[in-house]
Amino acid sequence: MSENHILRAFDRDLDAIQALVMRMGGLVETAITDAAHALEAGDLDKAERVRKADRDIDVLEYRINEEAARVIALRAPTAGDLRVVLSVMKIASALERVGDYAKNMAKRTQALVELGHTPVVAQAGASLRRMTRAVTELLSDALDSYATRDLALAQDVRIRDQEIDQMYNALFREFLTHMLEDPRNITPCIHLHFIAKNIERMGDHATAIAEQVVYLTTGEVPDDPRPKAENVANLPKS
Amino acid sequence: MSENHILRAFDRDLDAIQALVMRMGGLVETAITDAAHALEAGDLDKAERVRKADRDIDVLEYRINEEAARVIALRAPTAGDLRVVLSVMKIASALERVGDYAKNMAKRTQALVELGHTPVVAQAGASLRRMTRAVTELLSDALDSYATRDLALAQDVRIRDQEIDQMYNALFREFLTHMLEDPRNITPCIHLHFIAKNIERMGDHATAIAEQVVYLTTGEVPDDPRPKAENVANLPKS
Repeated sequence: MSENHILRAFDRDLDAIQALVMRMGGLVETAITDAAHALEAGDLDKAERVRKADRDIDVLEYRINEEAARVIALRAPTAGDLRVVLSVMKIASALERVGDYAKNMAKRTQALVELGHTPVVAQAGASLRRMTRAVTELLSDALDSYATRDLALAQDVRIRDQEIDQMYNALFREFLTHMLEDPRNITPCIHLHFIAKNIERMGDHATAIAEQVVYLTTGEVPDDPRPKAENVANLPKS
Repeated sequence: MSENHILRAFDRDLDAIQALVMRMGGLVETAITDAAHALEAGDLDKAERVRKADRDIDVLEYRINEEAARVIALRAPTAGDLRVVLSVMKIASALERVGDYAKNMAKRTQALVELGHTPVVAQAGASLRRMTRAVTELLSDALDSYATRDLALAQDVRIRDQEIDQMYNALFREFLTHMLEDPRNITPCIHLHFIAKNIERMGDHATAIAEQVVYLTTGEVPDDPRPKAENVANLPKS
């Protein structure tokens, strides 16, 4: 068996794993979008489907890890190839967490519906859906940058994540205002706040995927931590 | 070079990486404890030291990943050995996240001090310190269960994590009561709530480490998701 043949076997294996990652990415994007729609419409059935679908995402992560381990054991890849396989596992782990956040969003939607549909939830639902749309695009671009090893696109993802942080900050202030105005808003706003925070974290995971692309294409871990727009010291003094 | 010699070289490499993981665990435990003391005492200098020390934790994770990749490339471990190396990387990743939560706690402490020391913060500081003590013990036991491949201890960690979840739920209700009582409590209680949630998540990561031990010793991923005491539907209707 020539070395060339072995290399091609590795590439074939890697392609198969990367296809699983892309499928996982698709399921995660669907989960985010469905969770946002379920929240906005107060759709309990859809929320329940999002919760159940998370199982498929978890199973895919498990399969990706098993396949990656199998490829490493079988092909004994070179340092460079190994780096690619390990990055696939990291990306699958990031996607799994994003799926968890979507699931949590669905859980909180169920809790919000139980509280009764308050104006504050209806209003926030639309803002949160816009935020999830931005984060879904970010995630999709992060996965594209990985699939095509597009460094410029990966860098763009890192920068655009700041917009998600800013959307979070704006929503946070909005929720705080509602809480200060009327104590009955406190419980729903806590749920909404956690949802917004989870969407903001999805953006961080999209960034983590983009950082894997930077690492793979340049060999360098991004030196400066990503510029963060969130600033916890920035809360109003109430 | 006999196969036996190769195996021993792998074991030596693995021991070196595991030593790094234990050192990382030590730094993370210190970060949690220091962050809790900084919060309780409103100690800005200590909070700042926790934030800076997180860099060392991140650097250790990077080193562990590099070393693990080097060992895989150099020793071409068998499937079983490979599983151990991959688990080390997962544990390092869990520890890195716990370190991030401690750093975030320090940031929020700085924000709370700026708000002025309110009775609600002083009171919560002691409860949160108890919660961090419980989580530090959990993390320490999770790492011990890994070092000694102690399945019973790992299972114990998974069960005890529910106590952390219960502590979180109790604190959450306490904060909600304070917020409903007096709107001036809302901003500090949001910080305190995030801190409590982050400590609860530290417990989840200790559990994730314990689950690696279950996987390594039994070859099975724990079948049922860990019983969760947190229930988002469980919030008061305000």
